Formats: sequence, C-alpha cells, structure tokens
Amino acid sequence: MEPTALLILADGFEEIEAITTIDILRRADVKVTLASLNTEIVTGAHGIRISTSKILTTADTEYDALILPGGMPGSQNLADSEIVTQLIKEMDNSKKIIAAICAAPSLVLAPKGLLNNKKATCYAGMETNFPEAVSYTDEKVVQDQNIITSRGPATAPDFAFKILEALHKGDNANALRKGMLYNQ
Amino acid sequence: MEPTALLILADGFEEIEAITTIDILRRADVKVTLASLNTEIVTGAHGIRISTSKILTTADTEYDALILPGGMPGSQNLADSEIVTQLIKEMDNSKKIIAAICAAPSLVLAPKGLLNNKKATCYAGMETNFPEAVSYTDEKVVQDQNIITSRGPATAPDFAFKILEALHKGDNANALRKGMLYNQ
Repeated sequence: MEPTALLILADGFEEIEAITTIDILRRADVKVTLASLNTEIVTGAHGIRISTSKILTTADTEYDALILPGGMPGSQNLADSEIVTQLIKEMDNSKKIIAAICAAPSLVLAPKGLLNNKKATCYAGMETNFPEAVSYTDEKVVQDQNIITSRGPATAPDFAFKILEALHKGDNANALRKGMLYNQ
Repeated sequence: MEPTALLILADGFEEIEAITTIDILRRADVKVTLASLNTEIVTGAHGIRISTSKILTTADTEYDALILPGGMPGSQNLADSEIVTQLIKEMDNSKKIIAAICAAPSLVLAPKGLLNNKKATCYAGMETNFPEAVSYTDEKVVQDQNIITSRGPATAPDFAFKILEALHKGDNANALRKGMLYNQ
C-alpha cells in the first residue's frame, strides 16, 4: 500500500510551495489528494487556479499525512477553518504526519498548540508568532516527532523530501533529486 | 506598461517548471497569460490540473515573451502543435523573448532551427537531440540573443529570474530572491 497525503488548498495559497510538494511526492508514488475548503477550483496568491478533487470534511482523517502550504491569505484561511482545526487535532492525536511551510506553521499550527515543546521553523520573521514553548530554528526544514515545518518557496523541495522520508518513501530520494537536477 | 508573457500549457507539462516561472514573474509584475492548446483545464505530468485563461491561436503574437515549460509528454505536445510552431517562428522573427526549459529546448526549439548558431542548454542528456549547429552548455540557464534555455525543475527559479532580466524587470530581483529565501 502506497502512503497517502491530504494537501489542503485555500484561496491565497503559495503556488510554488504547494505544487513543488505535490509534484515531488507523486514522483515517489505517494497518493496525494488535493482538497479545498469550498469551491473545486482554488486560486493561489499569484492568481494560479488549481482544480482540486474534493471539498474537505471532518471525516478526512484517514490519510498518513496532512500538508498545509503557506502563502497569504491562504494560511490565514486555513487557520480560520473549523474543519481544518478539527482535522489537525484529530490527526495529531493519531500521530499522523502534519507538515506545514512558510506562514502555515506560525498562523495555523502554533496558535492551536501543535508546536508546543517542539523544535519548529517558519517563514523568516513569523517566528514572533510562536509561543514561548516552541523552540525556533532557522533550518530549512525540521521534523520533531510527527510535525514537519519549513520556511518558504525556496525550501519547498527540502520540505517535500522530508515528508517522503517520514512516509518511509525516502529510499529513492537521491535518484529523484538527481532526476530533477537538485543535486547539481 | 508592464511587460507581458504568454506561457503555453499542454497536457503533460512539468508542474514545478511552469508554476515556479509564473509565480516569480507575477511577483515582479510581469503580466503572465496562461494559454492551453485546446481545453480550459490542462493536466500536468503529475496530475495537477491548472485552469488557463485562453485557448491559443495564431494571433497570439503580441506578448513580449513566449514561455515553454518542459515535462513529458507536454513538450512533445507543444512540438506537435502547428499553432505553437507558427507562433515561435513569428515571435522569433520579431526578436521577442522565447524561453524554454527541460525537454522543451531539445524537442520544441531545436528541431525548428531556433537554437542554430546559438548557445543553449536543456534537460541533462537531451542535448543529443541538438543539431550540430547548436553550442550546448550545461549551465543552469543561458541566454543567447532572444533565446533563453534552462535544464529542469531545480533550475526553474534561475530560468524565471533570467526571463525577468530579459524583460528589464530584474531591478528588484535581489529583494525578490530574498523574500522567497532563494539567497539562503
């Protein structure tokens, strides 16, 4: 059984962060489902319109990983969603992988307490939103237990490869990096 | 007047290459139009579906730049299109910027003679498709006169920033790179 991931797109998501992650995970045969908060087509922070395959519900807890791209106001829209909040809490309780990049760690995960007593990163400067209980690092990507956080568009490939490792699909990561020319 | 660019999406386009380029150009206020060969929604090589704003016609020559993402069979679909062939030739005659990445330089531009007597790059290994008249380089991105070529997903940011320079929008490139964390 290939691992599964649910990536949530809200209007204003950062396109490079979302698309790089989906592309790399699918190259490694992770089954990635794109869900939106309401409409089938979601518009990114730079006007790119992506067609999703489902509208998110609170029943969507069966995935091995939950992925939250950054971007504004995309991350704020995720933070404001009751369904997203409930899913994050349920999947965290089940120790599923929860991965957030850029604005999403500080706007979505931190206020819900998900990063407390963990090491985490986020978009440069947004760590001021982290509660004191979070141990901030400026590494490109960091995993602490089931939580993966990363910083921005440029770190999206590192974010994706870290999720692959966490889903036990990291074996071919070097070949994948080479094929995409990330090792040059 | 902000510069304009036409980016053509064919089914099987490489998503990171296309989306990274659109995202970066739009951050620098280039007006990027997404066109498809036939249907409004185009599906990338890894199943990501993008909604375009127009179906390509031979009249679409008014843009300052024409951009061709790679990916398979996306690049082959571009190569097989009579409309794309005609647009490339007309825009090359007018010395408009023509930018291609990954499989597109070798499958689309090279066979139409666009790279002859020029320095160009492409996806590693696909340079075997280059005619002898092309001077191959393995640089991440290269511009020779009005033609910009690049290598693959990992070089998409360099490709986008080179297009910005060619459109005289490179002044804020350093701030843009910094904001996207590409300088770290």
